[in-house]
Amino acid sequence: MKSYRKELWFDIKGRRAFVHITPAVQTCLKESAVRESLVLVNAMHITPSVFINDDEHGLHQDHEVWLEKLATHAPVSHCHHKRTGEDNADAHIKCQVMGREVVVAVTDGKHDFGP
Amino acid sequence: MKSYRKELWFDIKGRRAFVHITPAVQTCLKESAVRESLVLVNAMHITPSVFINDDEHGLHQDHEVWLEKLATHAPVSHCHHKRTGEDNADAHIKCQVMGREVVVAVTDGKHDFGP
Amino acid sequence: MKSYRKELWFDIKGRRAFVHITPAVQTCLKESAVRESLVLVNAMHITPSVFINDDEHGLHQDHEVWLEKLATHAPVSHCHHKRTGEDNADAHIKCQVMGREVVVAVTDGKHDFGP
Repeated sequence: MKSYRKELWFDIKGRRAFVHITPAVQTCLKESAVRESLVLVNAMHITPSVFINDDEHGLHQDHEVWLEKLATHAPVSHCHHKRTGEDNADAHIKCQVMGREVVVAVTDGKHDFGP
Repeated sequence: MKSYRKELWFDIKGRRAFVHITPAVQTCLKESAVRESLVLVNAMHITPSVFINDDEHGLHQDHEVWLEKLATHAPVSHCHHKRTGEDNADAHIKCQVMGREVVVAVTDGKHDFGP
Repeated sequence: MKSYRKELWFDIKGRRAFVHITPAVQTCLKESAVRESLVLVNAMHITPSVFINDDEHGLHQDHEVWLEKLATHAPVSHCHHKRTGEDNADAHIKCQVMGREVVVAVTDGKHDFGP
């Protein structure tokens, strides 16, 4: 079975950002020359998330507000995880909700996302 | 590597419904003649969800109540996404929680779901 | 295509526990002799969850507190699912949030998790 692996690196400003990675993954698909398969796209850390949704700024803001309400960052003093010296228990939980990975069908060499 | 792809279309009434698609996917597995593999079942839009759980009406009602509390539809005026003319930011978020896709093992030509 | 399937069984005390299964899955990978592929690790029931995150006790406590707030067990009388004689609608919902399955790349015979 043919396989292809590539690491993509992203630098972001601030504690959280939305990065549109679909074009980068599409380039990987071209490089791989795979026509029919599955592509797994996952974060290599446990606080970022890879997910599929509308790349629309207003929706990103809605996600930001919703996630912060769902798993609030402050006060860090309430988090047991802080004993490790980290202050990002909320980021671990937000990542859990948004998902670490996506699996997408590759059809005729392209993401098979639908319309 | 052998692959098989099929689109399933569903019409639902109202803004949200639970559709039991396992029999339809099972039919696809038979058609594919695949014996040992993985099947990816994903929504082709970004507001529906594909997930695995008990097909029990009471549980569906519990999910409805819980999802509406978690990401309320009204008032739409609070959503940034509405600037696009859409009123479904909550549906995008509900989909995120419930999951866009499932990956299931195929063993001896059948879903390997467990009991 | 080569495939490998193994069932892992776990007994836990109480209604909920965190079990670190990575070493057990790693042993499966060795037994399979697969070098480059995808491994699917999923729960065979619909209330447990398989997820990838920091195996850190404080973070587990944070997850416990957060999950109980998000989908409270009591009072069971509020749940429609209880008509089936079950009192675990909250566990179905918690499982939905935490995720039933993970798909991980296998590279050179090992989980490709990142640092």
